[in-house]
Amino acid sequence: MKRLIALLEVYAILLNFCVNCEITVIEVKYPLEGQRSPPNAVWPHPQQINASLDLLYIRPHDITIFSNIETCDIIAKAIERYDPLLFPPKLTMHEPPSSADNILQSVSLNIRDGGQCEQYIQPTSNETYTLTISQQIAIVESTTIWGLLRGLETFSQLVYINKDNYVVINSTVNIVDSPRFHHRGIMLDSSRHFLPVPIIKKNLDVMSYNKLNVFHWHLVDDQSFPFESEAFPELSAKGAFSADHVYTPSDVADVIEHARLRGIRVIPEIDTPGHTHSWSKSMPELLTVCWANGRPNQAVYGVQGEMEIFNPSEPRVYTVMERLLREVKEKFPSNYIHLGMDEVYDKCWSSNPNVSAWMQAVNITSTKGLHAYYADRVLNIMRNIDSIPIVWQDVWDEQVELPTGTIIQVWKGGADNSWASYLNNAAKQGYNVILSTPWYLNYISYGKYNTNTSVMNLEFFKYYEIEPLMKFTGTEEEKKRILGGEACIWGEFIDSTNVLTTLWPRASAVAERLWSAATLNNSEDAQFRLDVHRCRLLRRGIPAQPILNGYCGNYELGMAKSMINDPVFNYDESVWVDVIITTAQPSSTKSTTPNIASPIHTFTSVGLFVITELLFLTIIFS
Amino acid sequence: MKRLIALLEVYAILLNFCVNCEITVIEVKYPLEGQRSPPNAVWPHPQQINASLDLLYIRPHDITIFSNIETCDIIAKAIERYDPLLFPPKLTMHEPPSSADNILQSVSLNIRDGGQCEQYIQPTSNETYTLTISQQIAIVESTTIWGLLRGLETFSQLVYINKDNYVVINSTVNIVDSPRFHHRGIMLDSSRHFLPVPIIKKNLDVMSYNKLNVFHWHLVDDQSFPFESEAFPELSAKGAFSADHVYTPSDVADVIEHARLRGIRVIPEIDTPGHTHSWSKSMPELLTVCWANGRPNQAVYGVQGEMEIFNPSEPRVYTVMERLLREVKEKFPSNYIHLGMDEVYDKCWSSNPNVSAWMQAVNITSTKGLHAYYADRVLNIMRNIDSIPIVWQDVWDEQVELPTGTIIQVWKGGADNSWASYLNNAAKQGYNVILSTPWYLNYISYGKYNTNTSVMNLEFFKYYEIEPLMKFTGTEEEKKRILGGEACIWGEFIDSTNVLTTLWPRASAVAERLWSAATLNNSEDAQFRLDVHRCRLLRRGIPAQPILNGYCGNYELGMAKSMINDPVFNYDESVWVDVIITTAQPSSTKSTTPNIASPIHTFTSVGLFVITELLFLTIIFS
Repeated sequence: MKRLIALLEVYAILLNFCVNCEITVIEVKYPLEGQRSPPNAVWPHPQQINASLDLLYIRPHDITIFSNIETCDIIAKAIERYDPLLFPPKLTMHEPPSSADNILQSVSLNIRDGGQCEQYIQPTSNETYTLTISQQIAIVESTTIWGLLRGLETFSQLVYINKDNYVVINSTVNIVDSPRFHHRGIMLDSSRHFLPVPIIKKNLDVMSYNKLNVFHWHLVDDQSFPFESEAFPELSAKGAFSADHVYTPSDVADVIEHARLRGIRVIPEIDTPGHTHSWSKSMPELLTVCWANGRPNQAVYGVQGEMEIFNPSEPRVYTVMERLLREVKEKFPSNYIHLGMDEVYDKCWSSNPNVSAWMQAVNITSTKGLHAYYADRVLNIMRNIDSIPIVWQDVWDEQVELPTGTIIQVWKGGADNSWASYLNNAAKQGYNVILSTPWYLNYISYGKYNTNTSVMNLEFFKYYEIEPLMKFTGTEEEKKRILGGEACIWGEFIDSTNVLTTLWPRASAVAERLWSAATLNNSEDAQFRLDVHRCRLLRRGIPAQPILNGYCGNYELGMAKSMINDPVFNYDESVWVDVIITTAQPSSTKSTTPNIASPIHTFTSVGLFVITELLFLTIIFS
Repeated sequence: MKRLIALLEVYAILLNFCVNCEITVIEVKYPLEGQRSPPNAVWPHPQQINASLDLLYIRPHDITIFSNIETCDIIAKAIERYDPLLFPPKLTMHEPPSSADNILQSVSLNIRDGGQCEQYIQPTSNETYTLTISQQIAIVESTTIWGLLRGLETFSQLVYINKDNYVVINSTVNIVDSPRFHHRGIMLDSSRHFLPVPIIKKNLDVMSYNKLNVFHWHLVDDQSFPFESEAFPELSAKGAFSADHVYTPSDVADVIEHARLRGIRVIPEIDTPGHTHSWSKSMPELLTVCWANGRPNQAVYGVQGEMEIFNPSEPRVYTVMERLLREVKEKFPSNYIHLGMDEVYDKCWSSNPNVSAWMQAVNITSTKGLHAYYADRVLNIMRNIDSIPIVWQDVWDEQVELPTGTIIQVWKGGADNSWASYLNNAAKQGYNVILSTPWYLNYISYGKYNTNTSVMNLEFFKYYEIEPLMKFTGTEEEKKRILGGEACIWGEFIDSTNVLTTLWPRASAVAERLWSAATLNNSEDAQFRLDVHRCRLLRRGIPAQPILNGYCGNYELGMAKSMINDPVFNYDESVWVDVIITTAQPSSTKSTTPNIASPIHTFTSVGLFVITELLFLTIIFS
């Protein structure tokens, strides 16, 4: 109760500005604590927010957004992109009453202090922004274009359609906002199942709606090698599931560009020396032949496969790795490459007499030493190509010395929260570190669970209530090395049918944890804001699953105004193929995001359909 | 191993007919036992199947399907419906080589023994059929049109597109097939979240692909009352989430008709006396006012709500129930109505002094007795309207005497498998009974789990390995009263974004358990057939989630040939709204299933796109 009252104080300012919108919560059997949220609750929650009760109208598709940073494609395209986000296709929005003089006139995106039109967001880019609305003008200010992007997202979340179908926003707003952690990511696995580019792009969209800024692309693994290398085309030609399950150079460029425009870095992962079975399709010589019962290719199933791990005694391993990593470095503008180095099942190494003989010859006395040898050589390649490594914690667990600046991704220690000491120790040793242990979102469970004190904790509470610094005892300098975290979704049972639905809005919990203040930690309150955010995602064409009983509006999937298949929110040719089949439509109709020439853009009004935006959050726990 | 060898014998005949298709399974670390499946593996598995190795070609969109039962709309429309199932839109299929003389000429759907064109499938309808292919002619025979429907489904699953893009089928096939259980159902909950009609219809489609025959529609509950009653329109006007979250009389008729054409019964559930909060929006007088601390409307939260359960002492309860059930009986051709009667939280009854006084006056000494009183009166209404009740087991647990023929739905006893004794006991007492306990598919979990003997059991094994008669000790007569079962998906965290993906192919495991022989019970073998079936569902526009690593083909969601949004597999106006927005297409393009005048229909050939149907099931467990 103390916690509730404290939060009521914090939220009193924030949440009392829901005017002209209705929220009803029915409490049956299990009453819900916390506050109901207005439809313009911002997710992730800004560091400081202050808003008036009274509202301004916005003319649908007719608000001037301009910027003082001219000829900057990232800003120009963002302005273009936000039209359907502010004014969802198919929803009815009325022009303000003719007598109204309280109308938002314009939105300025103002860069300060000589900020430039950078090409790519960097690991330490400043994303701080301010957003003020006063005298019928909205101003987003930042020293970087990345801050302007984040502020524009916040602005778009403040806008809502009220129950009379007017588009409105609070007339006075003061927001000062910045992320708590720099590194806020999602890891997708495109090897166990292939994830088509349109799905990856849609996921980048949702990431931007959650102010996430790192796409960690687990490109290849045992199951398949979908990355088409120009140096070694045979790797995907033989290692991909099929010729259709491949990322061509232009696909990769397409994903990177889509991410770039949204202020998201793309970090590729080339996982070795384990998880390399798919390489063996074209380069069997790189892999260790496992032995059993005195014979090769007779692996002990359940313990090892016949060929499952690189052979560090094979020189060609290093020539291939050098050339491939060099190509990856060229293709991915991020200066980081994730090297994997996790789950080295060394029993295959020790089973092979040739490997053992070689180890003896070069005086390596354990498979751990062999792993260190391999890691050293690959890390040396990374130095040669001037790229910074990221590794799963395993190679650090084995006490291999890693270069300064290496990022260690912590994924172990979930059962007893010992991930907290891993963060501590890695930072103490001078390494940078990111947290993933509690955020493996492929591990699904029923939407609520019982605890000793509650019968209705929602599943997302588990992700939300993680405090990365909960046991941190180091210096301020060390604390800065805890860069942030990533939600990971491994692909054993995930593909394009369920990746978006499984991730969202569960990953939104991680996004707020990594962006917002540590003191913002009441899940029971957050659930209502997250429910509103989930409805927002539906309105933006994302099939985000429900987290509470209830409903969003007549734009739900399967209803007439559903946005899920709306072309403006999709990058999927198949929707258009349907059109062509059925109506023999010329392919020129395929363009959904026209380029614009100027950073200053005025949307024209197109009223099409009727909707009542209802946000009665009717929530019952039975 | 013994189990494996035994199954190898059983499957030797069945599975060696994969010609011209490639299946590869990579075994790393955790080798997979069992057999790989060809792309034409039938799900659920027929009782007897025998097929040759050699193949016939089929001319795409050009096979004559005719029936000796003329002017039967169910058969005529089924023939129409199977064109896109046999020849998926967007996939390339070649005409047979001009020199080929091994071409399937026709498919006959032959009704025997004077079978009629029935309107609705009945609880005891005979679904037995035979399917033979010989001398380039396929013949499906049955004494009922329902058997013909099931046989046509099996035929469609035998047809596949080989890697050279020819459409083929085994040249000699002998199948004798019938379901093990009559009652094979899916329960959907449209109250906790609304499920739009297009989604319900799509789910009926998948049910027919799995030979399921009962749609149990949990229409109303605490959270909302979406069923629009003509007698009491206020129930949905006030009790539904919104005016858009309602099933109108024409929606209900639409669902029933969609089900009828597929041989599926629709059983409506009107759950009382608990789970009735949504009724209180328009009829507060029906509900018990709970008391606490000597005052009304002061419920003890966590134990009871302020109004959560009908008041059996209120006469209007029975007049409303009689009129509503009469309307439901008129609207739903099934002679069964599910009355719910589960989870009666009686603390509200005992808290209310007026209820207590009334109980004393009429000599009811316990809340259990009160529940029995209520049940008796409603069961009497059911007798008056000549409708057969189905109830959740709770009211039977409380030893209320139920009319002969009542079906008890068992949903308890999961922890210790005591559901098996419930089945036993109910049958012994002369009741009919259906099983749901182990098949609550809303309880999701990660896709695999460890057991004492395996590190790779897939989640669906749990549903698949249920044997409804595992502890059955009764007579043959009693055994017949175990009618079958239902997979249930409750809606707390399920709506249109995830219902199809969460159900399928997990519910397919239940479908095979209820249709196929009890001896067909090797999950490790079934997983490969189910994986093939999952790819089939994707080709039919169902976003079924993966159950194994690997891939299907270039028709996966997000790829150019995806069928998920293909109009022929959808009933969702929103896809078409997109078309209209973007291309100003006339609405006449909306018709996707033209009526046909004659039961004899010849498909014409339309080759459109290129695909390579690859079924390398590349499966690795890392």
